Amino acid sequence: MQKIAEFAEITPSADIRRDAHGWRAKCLQRLVRLDLPVPETVALPAQTVRSIAAGHPVDSKAILSHFGPIPLISVRPSPENPDWGGPGTVLNIGMNAAQHARLVDTNGREAADALYLRFVQTYATHVARLDPDMFDSGTPNADSLRDALRHYEREMEEPFPEDPAQQLSEVLRSMARAWEGTSARLLRQAKGAPVEAALGLVVQEMAQGIGQGISGSGVMQFIDPVTGLPLVKGRYLGQSQGRDALKKTEAIYLTRDKRGPSLEDIAPEIFADLIRHGAVCRQKLREEMQIEFTIEDGRLSVLDAVKVQRSARAGLKIAVALADDGVISREEAVLRVEPRALSELLHPQVDMRAARDVFAKGIAASPGAAVGRIVFSSQAAQASAARGEPCIMVRRETAPEDIRGMHAAVGVVTERGGVTSHAAVIARGLGVPCVVGASGMRLDPKEKRLIAADGRSFGEGDLITVDGTTGDVLAGAAEMLAPALDDAFRKLLSWADSFRDIGIRANADTPADAATARQFEAQGIGLCRTEHMFFDEDRLVVMREMIFADTSKDRAAALARLLPMQRADFVQLFEIMAGLPVCIRLFDPPLHEFLPHSREGLRELAEALDRPLSEVTRRAEALAEFNPMLGMRGVRLGVVLPEIYAMQAQAIFEAAVELARKGTPVVPEIMIPLVSAKREVELVKAHVDAIAASVRAKSGVAFDFKLGVMVETPRAALRAGEIAQHAAFLSFGTNDLTQMTYGLSRDDAGRFMNTYVQQGVFPEDPFHILDVDGVGELLLIGAERGRATRPDLTVSICGEHGGNPESIGFCRKAGFDYVSCSPYRVPLARLAAAHLALADRVDVRNITTIS
Amino acid sequence: MQKIAEFAEITPSADIRRDAHGWRAKCLQRLVRLDLPVPETVALPAQTVRSIAAGHPVDSKAILSHFGPIPLISVRPSPENPDWGGPGTVLNIGMNAAQHARLVDTNGREAADALYLRFVQTYATHVARLDPDMFDSGTPNADSLRDALRHYEREMEEPFPEDPAQQLSEVLRSMARAWEGTSARLLRQAKGAPVEAALGLVVQEMAQGIGQGISGSGVMQFIDPVTGLPLVKGRYLGQSQGRDALKKTEAIYLTRDKRGPSLEDIAPEIFADLIRHGAVCRQKLREEMQIEFTIEDGRLSVLDAVKVQRSARAGLKIAVALADDGVISREEAVLRVEPRALSELLHPQVDMRAARDVFAKGIAASPGAAVGRIVFSSQAAQASAARGEPCIMVRRETAPEDIRGMHAAVGVVTERGGVTSHAAVIARGLGVPCVVGASGMRLDPKEKRLIAADGRSFGEGDLITVDGTTGDVLAGAAEMLAPALDDAFRKLLSWADSFRDIGIRANADTPADAATARQFEAQGIGLCRTEHMFFDEDRLVVMREMIFADTSKDRAAALARLLPMQRADFVQLFEIMAGLPVCIRLFDPPLHEFLPHSREGLRELAEALDRPLSEVTRRAEALAEFNPMLGMRGVRLGVVLPEIYAMQAQAIFEAAVELARKGTPVVPEIMIPLVSAKREVELVKAHVDAIAASVRAKSGVAFDFKLGVMVETPRAALRAGEIAQHAAFLSFGTNDLTQMTYGLSRDDAGRFMNTYVQQGVFPEDPFHILDVDGVGELLLIGAERGRATRPDLTVSICGEHGGNPESIGFCRKAGFDYVSCSPYRVPLARLAAAHLALADRVDVRNITTIS
Repeated sequence: MQKIAEFAEITPSADIRRDAHGWRAKCLQRLVRLDLPVPETVALPAQTVRSIAAGHPVDSKAILSHFGPIPLISVRPSPENPDWGGPGTVLNIGMNAAQHARLVDTNGREAADALYLRFVQTYATHVARLDPDMFDSGTPNADSLRDALRHYEREMEEPFPEDPAQQLSEVLRSMARAWEGTSARLLRQAKGAPVEAALGLVVQEMAQGIGQGISGSGVMQFIDPVTGLPLVKGRYLGQSQGRDALKKTEAIYLTRDKRGPSLEDIAPEIFADLIRHGAVCRQKLREEMQIEFTIEDGRLSVLDAVKVQRSARAGLKIAVALADDGVISREEAVLRVEPRALSELLHPQVDMRAARDVFAKGIAASPGAAVGRIVFSSQAAQASAARGEPCIMVRRETAPEDIRGMHAAVGVVTERGGVTSHAAVIARGLGVPCVVGASGMRLDPKEKRLIAADGRSFGEGDLITVDGTTGDVLAGAAEMLAPALDDAFRKLLSWADSFRDIGIRANADTPADAATARQFEAQGIGLCRTEHMFFDEDRLVVMREMIFADTSKDRAAALARLLPMQRADFVQLFEIMAGLPVCIRLFDPPLHEFLPHSREGLRELAEALDRPLSEVTRRAEALAEFNPMLGMRGVRLGVVLPEIYAMQAQAIFEAAVELARKGTPVVPEIMIPLVSAKREVELVKAHVDAIAASVRAKSGVAFDFKLGVMVETPRAALRAGEIAQHAAFLSFGTNDLTQMTYGLSRDDAGRFMNTYVQQGVFPEDPFHILDVDGVGELLLIGAERGRATRPDLTVSICGEHGGNPESIGFCRKAGFDYVSCSPYRVPLARLAAAHLALADRVDVRNITTIS
Repeated sequence: MQKIAEFAEITPSADIRRDAHGWRAKCLQRLVRLDLPVPETVALPAQTVRSIAAGHPVDSKAILSHFGPIPLISVRPSPENPDWGGPGTVLNIGMNAAQHARLVDTNGREAADALYLRFVQTYATHVARLDPDMFDSGTPNADSLRDALRHYEREMEEPFPEDPAQQLSEVLRSMARAWEGTSARLLRQAKGAPVEAALGLVVQEMAQGIGQGISGSGVMQFIDPVTGLPLVKGRYLGQSQGRDALKKTEAIYLTRDKRGPSLEDIAPEIFADLIRHGAVCRQKLREEMQIEFTIEDGRLSVLDAVKVQRSARAGLKIAVALADDGVISREEAVLRVEPRALSELLHPQVDMRAARDVFAKGIAASPGAAVGRIVFSSQAAQASAARGEPCIMVRRETAPEDIRGMHAAVGVVTERGGVTSHAAVIARGLGVPCVVGASGMRLDPKEKRLIAADGRSFGEGDLITVDGTTGDVLAGAAEMLAPALDDAFRKLLSWADSFRDIGIRANADTPADAATARQFEAQGIGLCRTEHMFFDEDRLVVMREMIFADTSKDRAAALARLLPMQRADFVQLFEIMAGLPVCIRLFDPPLHEFLPHSREGLRELAEALDRPLSEVTRRAEALAEFNPMLGMRGVRLGVVLPEIYAMQAQAIFEAAVELARKGTPVVPEIMIPLVSAKREVELVKAHVDAIAASVRAKSGVAFDFKLGVMVETPRAALRAGEIAQHAAFLSFGTNDLTQMTYGLSRDDAGRFMNTYVQQGVFPEDPFHILDVDGVGELLLIGAERGRATRPDLTVSICGEHGGNPESIGFCRKAGFDYVSCSPYRVPLARLAAAHLALADRVDVRNITTIS
């Protein structure tokens, strides 16, 4: 690589590099190459700026020699990435008595005074670091100019510098030093800048915008930044400089407008030129640009062009439009949309432009926003939904019995819990906006009041807004933006699918979930948790009878009543999924989750079961566990009370028979939860195989199925080699696996997770971002050992991590067949997987874009 | 190897092998070689017996040819191991009319009738399988003999066989078939016999014991089977055969005795011969033997010699005595004592010879037995102990607040819980006999009644006996045997220590534990759980103040009051351990364990803290956890509330200073619990190092210490490589590690563990026997990765598995430095470790003993 010059004039052939001179210098060179009317510009590379900051002088005279005998110039920052900020632009360097006299002649005294005063103000405050208040003297005129110069001299004990070279040197030094300041450093690092991020500077001839004829400045863009639809947008202000047009109310429209004068009226040719320049930029810079321009006596200069700031939905629309127009490839269009940005498009959002009356803040647990009336119980939520009134369910925390209420509510707020609490997990699954762990509010369930930290109190029926994207809870109904599942969205994701090389399934427990999964084009259901099916009121009663059954026969009788309901569940799921694979996890939770917790509930149960309260209470207590997460659940229930799994297997197979008879055969996948030993799988398999044979024999219909294991215990991962002898697939349940690998309950981790992440004990909440080092190693061990036994083993991940780009990347590298995630994360996962596949393609890796 | 003959006469040089002909044949050959008067004997190898069972005839005539023209013989079983049982001995084969006539001549009619009748009875019931009742005709005489022969003929439709060859063939066939029977098979397999275990048979010339002159039979041994002390024991019965002397009350003593006649009186020379034969056997067979002998007309025959059955304490005493006498080596003495047998010696035991009134059966959770009066609460236990009345604490289950009560009680019974429940773990640590999960009894805590399955009801103050060795709970005070920590015990263990190559430490939380550890010669404390120190009433109050402190300052103030108490704890421990290493685990349990659970307790707490009940209740509720095992405990507390660990570290270091000043310096080992990430160790280490520096500076005393990590989460094992960067030692807490690897709470596993072990899902309860495949792999991974980082890393295991021979074997193979176990398991561990080391020694491996 050539040695970089101390500074370089920006010409089409000059050696200007983004990594040395910064994004602005490179962009200006592109504009020059496109023959846009860019004023003379010199670029200082980072190396030079660093040397200036270190105290080494720069040859300002030599720089100035590029700008004629009486130079008037600006200096702008040019870091490698525009997001990294930088010191403010300094205009009108070179203003001194001589220049002032010249401008009085050419542009009149008023303009000359204004320009000089502006420069003195900027220089005094930003370069000499004097008190800005002393230089803010209202209207610019000869008096205020004189005052400013005098004040400068008094404070600095020397006259205001007259020498343009001295002025430039000082401006450059000041800007170079500002970049090294602590706050600037912290600010840019927060935006993702590396520690060694450096600053380039751009010295440009001033295009005045103040003077004779049509003079002024403005900005122009060609796209709506919120919608992404084509639209000329911007402002123009006569007799102005820099970005004044955006700040002053006197600015006028660009396009012809009934509401007032426009640039198109005043200077139709210049307007047409700008439109043309915009089109050239879009085509050649392959991006929607905002143009900063100046008109000096009817002559147009383009000072700068930057990528248009845009909303997530606009970004997607623009990328698709550019690809449709052949400006960029589909690969590039896919890469230009950040996967995480998609979630914004899937749900209604609070319009950020409107006022926000936040009364509580919590953890953003499920994205999107919703407005509704407060309810404090699952029953009230269902009643509200039945009345057609949107409601927000507010609870201390949620339990499985609240699921129907969560279904009925448009949003959920809990006082306790973390990002993987019950409420959060279920809400994400349902796509219901949710804020959990809302500190600063207190719930009084008895009085049915919600008390905010500021003392405000809300009751049942009061209108609030949940913003699950930010974690805010707002009083009243906030302004909303509708979701954006339009053609562009579908088109981009279909392109993503064509690049993707790992399967994406959805976790779906209900027909509604399954429909969402289909809407988002999931390739099947990777995890259907069957226990949620037993919380319907009519089923819950039978479920409890089953739990209290004294004999295997009584238990089987209760289960026989659940069988047709369960079969109907599966028929419905299979029908919605239309032949796509459906992986059904057998019953998992501890039985006590199905029992009432209150004394009142127990009394009702005793009545319903016609047993003494004391007996019901005693047996409910006997079922209680110290650590339910590590107790009698999953396959342990399946082994000890085999009737439950038997009923489920029968329901699945009978549903498969029904589908086969309807001409749409399915191959159900049955998954055994919480396995820790091979023999557990053997026992369940023997049972399930026998039931399959019996259903085949009785129905006379042939069907196939797959039996697999959910790997949730470290031991199952370690013993995957032998477990795979009896399993057609292994699916890693990383929620539980993370809990057990860390010895950390996700329900209890909220209390210290913040401290832990802040102190860097965990780099991230491992329930949120897969712990690659620990849990990840178990995934690799499990997959490798499983496949060593059975090379055609299907390996996947389900659970909350499934939708994270990082986890998808990990699973893809490990050769997993698919990931399964909440239905609402499926689009994100599809896009993230495409990004990962594209990142491995050499032809794609070298795409460079304006950022 | 030579082909084995179909049968072989036992001579000193005959090819008689234990694996072919069985233990009895081999033992008889040894007696022959020792020149003992053994009657003519022929051995049939297993191969021959199997062939007979399969229906192939044996050449009985050829066998009989060894026994003269009118043979009278017996057949006895000779399996490879005497424990495996076998068909009953058949005597007097060859009895027929001719033999009868001969015996009438030589021994008189009465004797001849008795012998013939006996043979007919045996033959009819065991060989012909006729109804025994029909042949049990009271006094043997000519009538009853005739009746028996007639009855045989009627039932079998053929006369009683006269041909000795036919008789022998039938007896051999019958015995060979009996061995193959299902119940015999199950019985011997229960005793550890392999599936392919085979039977040898021994055919021996009858030494009559009935006849002229001094005739009779008896058994004799030279040792007390309960104490192991030298003592001639046995019985002799004139005119008897087989083991009649042991069954009939007419039998007489062997040695001279005031209570009646003795063999020594009747036949002093024969008696002297027997004593001499016994001494020869002990010396040459290197074992204490019981001799079966017959005297026929003053002529002594030794028919058989078997190893004396013995209690555990006698076994130990005999082994030590044999080694002291130079009969066996110390290595062999050590190997002859089963480690598990030791636990019987450490505690008082229920005397098995006495009657047992069992009213409940549970899991034998802590060995030994105790008699005491029932108490139902910790308070009552303490009050009882204060009155000097031994008490048995009976609880539904125990919690940390019950520990003082368990200390005070002599035994513990719980209705719930498994072998690793709180009660079980603590009781083993305390060496208190304990039965948990006592099904078949029901506790009514309100009425303070304990109701047995048979309806009997026990109240506070009623006397019961806990047998923690068998799991029985007995009504009343059972007969007891005192523990046996005598010189022989100490001597054997000191020999074991000289062979052992892995360290043995004790888990000890209290001075009493530490004293026990020293008594059993543990090489230090491997795990001192400090939390138990905070349950003393005066400390508990301060502890609760600390928990409810609003600020770090208030928390520190409460801890400052705990500091001197904690320091005193450590001074005492260090003094007892006298320079041996003491590994102190920092505070581990969740804070809510220190709060009262009842409403009454909360009210008292509110009063004590002078805070409103509502606030105390709310905060206690807020501390509650869904899965305490996986919650805010261990190092998580240490990171979030660093004041607790700071106080403990200061107490440890100040105690070390005090010891150093007394001239007995210690190097405390500080262990961090529940680590899952390296950074946790870094944070605690920085704190602890700073406190060490401050204590050194303030005291002016130099001391050293080691900081290490308790590996209890799978992640800590996987990340041991980086964790070892900051840890001088890793100690695997296999209790918690097992819980997390299986996703299985030991407190909740009791509900299905039995089913699981019965169905072979788990080969053993993994909380009882280390799961080598899963948890074991994590141990290996952790040790290997830790040592790769730090070759001098000390690696150990603590927790319940530490004392199991299997676990010790595993840790020894993996190169662990030590295991740490309950103080009362230390002797067992020392002996088991010696066995393992000796098993690897080639010179020891070939020792063969009589078993």
